[in-house]
Amino acid sequence: MSIRIAIYGYGNLGKGVELAVRNNPDMELVGVFTRRDPKTLKIKTPGVKVYGADEIFAEKDDIDVLIICSGSATDLPEQTPKLAAFFNVIDSFDTHAKIPEHFQNTDSAARNAGKVAIISVGWDPGMFSINRLYSACILPDGKDYTFWGKGVSQGHSDAIRRVPGVKNGKQYTVPVPAALEAVRSGKNPELSTAEKHTRECFVVAEEGADKAEIERQIKTMPNYFADYNTTVNFITEEELAEKHSGIPHGGFVIRCGKTGAEGENKHIIEYSLKLDSNPEFTASVLVAYARAAYRLSREGSCGCKTVFDIAPAYLSIQSPEELRKHFL
Amino acid sequence: MSIRIAIYGYGNLGKGVELAVRNNPDMELVGVFTRRDPKTLKIKTPGVKVYGADEIFAEKDDIDVLIICSGSATDLPEQTPKLAAFFNVIDSFDTHAKIPEHFQNTDSAARNAGKVAIISVGWDPGMFSINRLYSACILPDGKDYTFWGKGVSQGHSDAIRRVPGVKNGKQYTVPVPAALEAVRSGKNPELSTAEKHTRECFVVAEEGADKAEIERQIKTMPNYFADYNTTVNFITEEELAEKHSGIPHGGFVIRCGKTGAEGENKHIIEYSLKLDSNPEFTASVLVAYARAAYRLSREGSCGCKTVFDIAPAYLSIQSPEELRKHFL
Repeated sequence: MSIRIAIYGYGNLGKGVELAVRNNPDMELVGVFTRRDPKTLKIKTPGVKVYGADEIFAEKDDIDVLIICSGSATDLPEQTPKLAAFFNVIDSFDTHAKIPEHFQNTDSAARNAGKVAIISVGWDPGMFSINRLYSACILPDGKDYTFWGKGVSQGHSDAIRRVPGVKNGKQYTVPVPAALEAVRSGKNPELSTAEKHTRECFVVAEEGADKAEIERQIKTMPNYFADYNTTVNFITEEELAEKHSGIPHGGFVIRCGKTGAEGENKHIIEYSLKLDSNPEFTASVLVAYARAAYRLSREGSCGCKTVFDIAPAYLSIQSPEELRKHFL
Repeated sequence: MSIRIAIYGYGNLGKGVELAVRNNPDMELVGVFTRRDPKTLKIKTPGVKVYGADEIFAEKDDIDVLIICSGSATDLPEQTPKLAAFFNVIDSFDTHAKIPEHFQNTDSAARNAGKVAIISVGWDPGMFSINRLYSACILPDGKDYTFWGKGVSQGHSDAIRRVPGVKNGKQYTVPVPAALEAVRSGKNPELSTAEKHTRECFVVAEEGADKAEIERQIKTMPNYFADYNTTVNFITEEELAEKHSGIPHGGFVIRCGKTGAEGENKHIIEYSLKLDSNPEFTASVLVAYARAAYRLSREGSCGCKTVFDIAPAYLSIQSPEELRKHFL
């Protein structure tokens, strides 16, 4: 019997989940729920129904795991606890500072309902977090570094587009090669986020706009760009569409630690991602954890969990015997 | 109260465990057990007693977790099941093909005794296995590659030293840069172990030995060198001691996978280790999993487990709340 997956929210992430389910033969997509008018939504999977968001509670007996694909700013803090009272749920909540609060809210809801919720699943938080944790446990006498990019930052791209005279724009976060090398060499440098990253902007200006003024406004924008080495490139709408329409991302988690009687032996653990599509990769992680949520729920587990609480074997379609034979 | 750790076997790995325990303030070393004459063994930790191997059963109420630091060829298959009948145990059994059998033997012993055993802990098997598994679950439509090195292979160094006329020698396994690049580019090449690695030998010849003949014998040695691009460098005993006395190792686990409606988006997950001391790093992994064994045992769990069965949070000295706050 397949694991019956439903998607709540059909943006880039929801679309990615729809495709990721196809790569997992033990799963089937049973519905997509949207706050838009369901009649206007065309999905890629023949025979799967699109529902209005408020119809979801009527379908609760036909969904094993609900993957909530909404944004972290305002939607997930409200939706995940509410839905965890009726469904096993997965979300990708990524506002790091608010995770403890989101965990508490979701935990009470899921626990009271006897459901499993796994929050903050993806790559950061998610796979990057797991790697920070494993590495810190193995090398307690050490220091870790996270670099993001090269990749598109949605928040910074939005910020560019709000500058007067800007028609369209895209921002890439790029790790500084010299900072990466200093970390990999084991020098344990002190580095701020700005020292680790540069910001590359590709901007389409409106006709007749003052480009020098646009560049000045971007480069001096507090929080977003002012502290960074920022470059601004003006390009045409056509070039933006042709060369910058993807949503790539990635990054590096590196820990350098010491062992030995005098700390004389150095060890570097490095984990990196190079992703053509940030939402499709994140969706693939969500789907693997949906399998874990299903199994944990069948075992009688309940409450809120994170990637730290899930043994790796729970993510796999293969049996423990097969895993020991083929992956160990 | 500290987790009371004991070490069984005091070679390079056991010595590494002794040092690694010092980096973990929730643990204390309570004894070292050896098959040598305990009186001849000098350990690094003041106040800790060295026992004969057969004295261990008398100490069973004073040990929370026993870390077995013996070799995989003949010792661990016999020792781990025997000791798991009395102790929570950790081993680093690394004969990949025999893991299923070792698991079965250890599982029955540990289960009957109500003890926890975690086998095949280290980096390969161990951290590399975990990364192969996570990556395969996230990107089912993909292929993974493991490269070893640059590092010292004990087995190949021993093989060199058995060649007539060889006084001493050391062998490094080195990944082929072009093969690494082909994998990272996402080309999904088919590569044999020999195509992924070269073998670099540093040899001290006996006086008057026929170096050309030594080189020929090494390069044509079946299984060990014949299939590989092998280089042989003759050096002096002094140079060997000066430049090649360390036991570095490391390697790469890389998975390249595709997502999207037509598999149009490519993703690369890469995990790498660069280790100054193979035994000290392996020991550090063993010690982190000793914490997990202790906790699982306190929770009432029993039987044999591998790294696949252990949620990352079990390895950490920090509480779940702290982990969510600082690592997620």
